[in-house]
Amino acid sequence: MSDDAVHLSHADLVALLERIFVKNGVSEHNARILAENCAGCERDGSLSHGVFRMPGYVSSLNSGWVDGKAVAEVEDVGPAFVRVDAKGGFTQPAFFAARPLLIEKVKANGVAVLAIRRSHHFSALWPDVEPFAEEGFVALSVVNSMACVVPHGGKKAVFGTNPVAFASPRAGSAPFVFDQASSAIAHGDVQIAARAGHELRPGMGVDRDGQPTNDPKEILDGGALLPFGGHKGNSIALMVEILSAALTGGYFSGEFDWSGHKGAQTPYTGQFFVVIDPARGGNDVFAERVAGICDLVLEAGQERLPGDRRHLTRAKAQRDGIPLSAESHAKLVSLAADR
Amino acid sequence: MSDDAVHLSHADLVALLERIFVKNGVSEHNARILAENCAGCERDGSLSHGVFRMPGYVSSLNSGWVDGKAVAEVEDVGPAFVRVDAKGGFTQPAFFAARPLLIEKVKANGVAVLAIRRSHHFSALWPDVEPFAEEGFVALSVVNSMACVVPHGGKKAVFGTNPVAFASPRAGSAPFVFDQASSAIAHGDVQIAARAGHELRPGMGVDRDGQPTNDPKEILDGGALLPFGGHKGNSIALMVEILSAALTGGYFSGEFDWSGHKGAQTPYTGQFFVVIDPARGGNDVFAERVAGICDLVLEAGQERLPGDRRHLTRAKAQRDGIPLSAESHAKLVSLAADR
Repeated sequence: MSDDAVHLSHADLVALLERIFVKNGVSEHNARILAENCAGCERDGSLSHGVFRMPGYVSSLNSGWVDGKAVAEVEDVGPAFVRVDAKGGFTQPAFFAARPLLIEKVKANGVAVLAIRRSHHFSALWPDVEPFAEEGFVALSVVNSMACVVPHGGKKAVFGTNPVAFASPRAGSAPFVFDQASSAIAHGDVQIAARAGHELRPGMGVDRDGQPTNDPKEILDGGALLPFGGHKGNSIALMVEILSAALTGGYFSGEFDWSGHKGAQTPYTGQFFVVIDPARGGNDVFAERVAGICDLVLEAGQERLPGDRRHLTRAKAQRDGIPLSAESHAKLVSLAADR
Repeated sequence: MSDDAVHLSHADLVALLERIFVKNGVSEHNARILAENCAGCERDGSLSHGVFRMPGYVSSLNSGWVDGKAVAEVEDVGPAFVRVDAKGGFTQPAFFAARPLLIEKVKANGVAVLAIRRSHHFSALWPDVEPFAEEGFVALSVVNSMACVVPHGGKKAVFGTNPVAFASPRAGSAPFVFDQASSAIAHGDVQIAARAGHELRPGMGVDRDGQPTNDPKEILDGGALLPFGGHKGNSIALMVEILSAALTGGYFSGEFDWSGHKGAQTPYTGQFFVVIDPARGGNDVFAERVAGICDLVLEAGQERLPGDRRHLTRAKAQRDGIPLSAESHAKLVSLAADR
């Protein structure tokens, strides 16, 4: 971070982002949730889902594509099954509307699922799952997005980046958490590379003719990403479509029509969660066992576990404030100002 | 298949395998289940888990490592949570002992989980999940195995091949099913390549010094496999350990001690299932939607979906019988003969 960096407390960054959301038609209730989410990503160094996303939020709201004031409808459809109709709003307010009922069902039954539809998810997935692990639960979540990934061996984009996130309690340290796109690279990282003028490593994507390319601009200009890990990552991407869209009643990544909403950037799809109470597994030392296998992986020579760098970045930000470049900060202040 | 191939009906192959299991100390009840499973793999062309495995079953039983007569104990530990203690026997009899209760819970609650521990899984995972999809459910299962996969960037094997299997109903055709190791290649396929003297593609494994190798014999002789898809496949392998061992109360892949059982080949770990009733998702056309996204993937240029070739092989075997080489057949007959 350069010398001209601005450092904000988490509370101050949340307040600034909240003003931007409210100014652009988001209800105060929803704005608080979205601002906390976006500031949390920036705080943890999860930059492709941090304040970098704010112009996209704003232009999507202003296009009329997403309803910032949506009030989600939570449906209790089974002892261990919750559905939510996000009614064209962002996913996070719909998720938080359903979360207490979901937790209640997990505690009562040992496992429960949450199926969200007609929702716009424009953030990382780890903020959704990590708090479950902090409360002692194991959580798995998937979300589909917008068609930008060609199937293995295919030419036409069908899948979204379709991340899978998993969180588990781990004794003695922050939860074990991963949040990984089923594409070879996250779409936000391609945008950041394009903006920075960096080449990508081979195997990340194809150009508009379906030919391999390392140029992020060619990928963004009518090209597409590849799944990670060949046919295996491809199968995971397809599973994510089935769970997030077919099961929830939402749209597939290639299905929604935003052509009438210039400036729209948010995928209008669905999200799926499975949350498990490991105490029912009968293993009293579950969190200790998770810490044990994580330690074995590090002892075997793996450099770090997913999430670990993010937790270190968070600790630094909690001590020193969240660093923003002067340019990013000025942009946010301008978005928050009266027009 | 050469001209000297023998063709057996499914029933005849099951009966032959059943005799081998019973002869080697498996109860009649358990033998039937294991024989059906192994014959099903052979029938579907899933050869690395077909009759190729019979000598391994036999030597594991004879070593005293696995209890072929084990009677699993099913524990009803929550409205949507079933546990099973396989008591040192094979996983499949434990799974079938718990399956009716699991299905009952899925129907009653919308989702349920099954956690199996102290179990030996020596087969493919698709036979466990596919029947759920045939009954209208979505199923996800994971199983850990024996340490033969180094973590991403690591030198020492920690993970098993740790497959993930998923099955979903699909309108108008057989279920969509995948069953994929979180290693770059299945261990059985390395054994087959070593036996055939074939080289592997690059990126499959390392030798005993942790250096990349394409020689299956070097991988088997003190070397190890690599996870698929770099750090992402690695995270999936670690998730499989957490769900299959930490959550169930079973052993991690590198933890069990079979040193006192010469000839033992079966991993003594755990298995985990999540089974979902998609009807609770409120999408009446769920199976049609799954067929729709599968069709889109094929239209985009993907050659085939996982499971499709297996279903074609099955159809052929149901028509013409299950083909076995004369050598394989003779070996089975010899294993089944009185000694």
